[in-house]
Amino acid sequence: MKNIIVASTSTLFGGDYLEYLLEDLEELYKDVNDILFIPYARPDGISHDLYTEKVGVAFKRIGKSVKGIHEFKHPKEAIKNCHAIFVGGGNTFVLVNELQTNNLIEPIKTAISTGVPYLGTSAGSNICGISMQTTNDMPIVYPTSFDTLGLIPFNINPHYLDIDPKNKHMGESRETRIKEFHHFNNQTVIGLREGSFLRVNGDIIMLKGPHSARIFRPDKTPYELKTNHILKVSNERF
Amino acid sequence: MKNIIVASTSTLFGGDYLEYLLEDLEELYKDVNDILFIPYARPDGISHDLYTEKVGVAFKRIGKSVKGIHEFKHPKEAIKNCHAIFVGGGNTFVLVNELQTNNLIEPIKTAISTGVPYLGTSAGSNICGISMQTTNDMPIVYPTSFDTLGLIPFNINPHYLDIDPKNKHMGESRETRIKEFHHFNNQTVIGLREGSFLRVNGDIIMLKGPHSARIFRPDKTPYELKTNHILKVSNERF
Repeated sequence: MKNIIVASTSTLFGGDYLEYLLEDLEELYKDVNDILFIPYARPDGISHDLYTEKVGVAFKRIGKSVKGIHEFKHPKEAIKNCHAIFVGGGNTFVLVNELQTNNLIEPIKTAISTGVPYLGTSAGSNICGISMQTTNDMPIVYPTSFDTLGLIPFNINPHYLDIDPKNKHMGESRETRIKEFHHFNNQTVIGLREGSFLRVNGDIIMLKGPHSARIFRPDKTPYELKTNHILKVSNERF
Repeated sequence: MKNIIVASTSTLFGGDYLEYLLEDLEELYKDVNDILFIPYARPDGISHDLYTEKVGVAFKRIGKSVKGIHEFKHPKEAIKNCHAIFVGGGNTFVLVNELQTNNLIEPIKTAISTGVPYLGTSAGSNICGISMQTTNDMPIVYPTSFDTLGLIPFNINPHYLDIDPKNKHMGESRETRIKEFHHFNNQTVIGLREGSFLRVNGDIIMLKGPHSARIFRPDKTPYELKTNHILKVSNERF
């Protein structure tokens, strides 16, 4: 049974890394002591080692140990043998490209389908969707496909930003970008504001955190989904 | 001899479409009456027809007529026979994908190298660079490559946004994204603020408009280039 947290961000303004999520992570990872960390997204170009170290410090606060997948000779085996997974944020193109290069997409899907708990933040959440095509990141490397894990039957837009009526900048708003996405793609998109996350237990998906989420469906007016609301996927026609 | 304007945006806040550029467009297009418009980037998903109509209205103010490339049966021939080109903004992935599908990359490069005047705004400016990999757009379609026209020996980041010290949003700043780009790529990136544009005459490239531009080179501290400054490419080691 799937056991997943899909978080918009790792860090809230003024908070420590993963701090706001720790209580929920204790629950997600309650049956495991060690977590396999996938540092491929490399925020700010940070090395795999330094990124893993940072994650280790955060998880120490709830008594979990962390090992980076780059420390294993055979990353596929590492996935097969792990008890829990965390995929951190950074650049989604770099993350997906590295997962493809190491042939890890299918092994991760298999692990999660057999109940291995998974946390994704930002880029690590983007890849939970059907495709990475609603990422905010720059295409700094060229992956062999935009398809991702499809753990949830829609796409995520993390760090979702509302339209600011005072903004004089003429770049497209997030809402406009997602509308453009729907000219070429059919899947629902969930705009997850910072502090929001989805808690997935099997087929039950619940929105958690202080905010509502913005739901975009092709040819429909976007609407808000309240927090602590369960998305009954089959009923909601995602 | 190349004769190009590479503009950050088509429209300034509160202004009409292309209005702030009209004087410079009169100069760019002084020897031609009719402009071939490439509407492929489809901002907000607008149709090719409606986009072309909008562009026609703007160019009528300086006495030029506009025809959309989609109105031609053979787009490659249309490029070969045209007297001037304008590629408008929208989604860079959609634009590049459509240029590739219609095999137009090489014909456009050839036309421009023989002196056909070219205006690009936003997505139409991104494609003037070596690659589209410093676009701000969402990857809503999958192009066969990220390589672009290479009319200028660097990459463009249009709608460049400075870091806002008051911002509490935890998504990456533009500067961070470009720094991440340089972990995987070597080319210089020019952050063009809205209202800025590059005027290319042969090998001479001059920054125009009210703002300075921000120059990013791998492993260097970013710096500002003043407006009305000529980039002597060979001397500046782009």
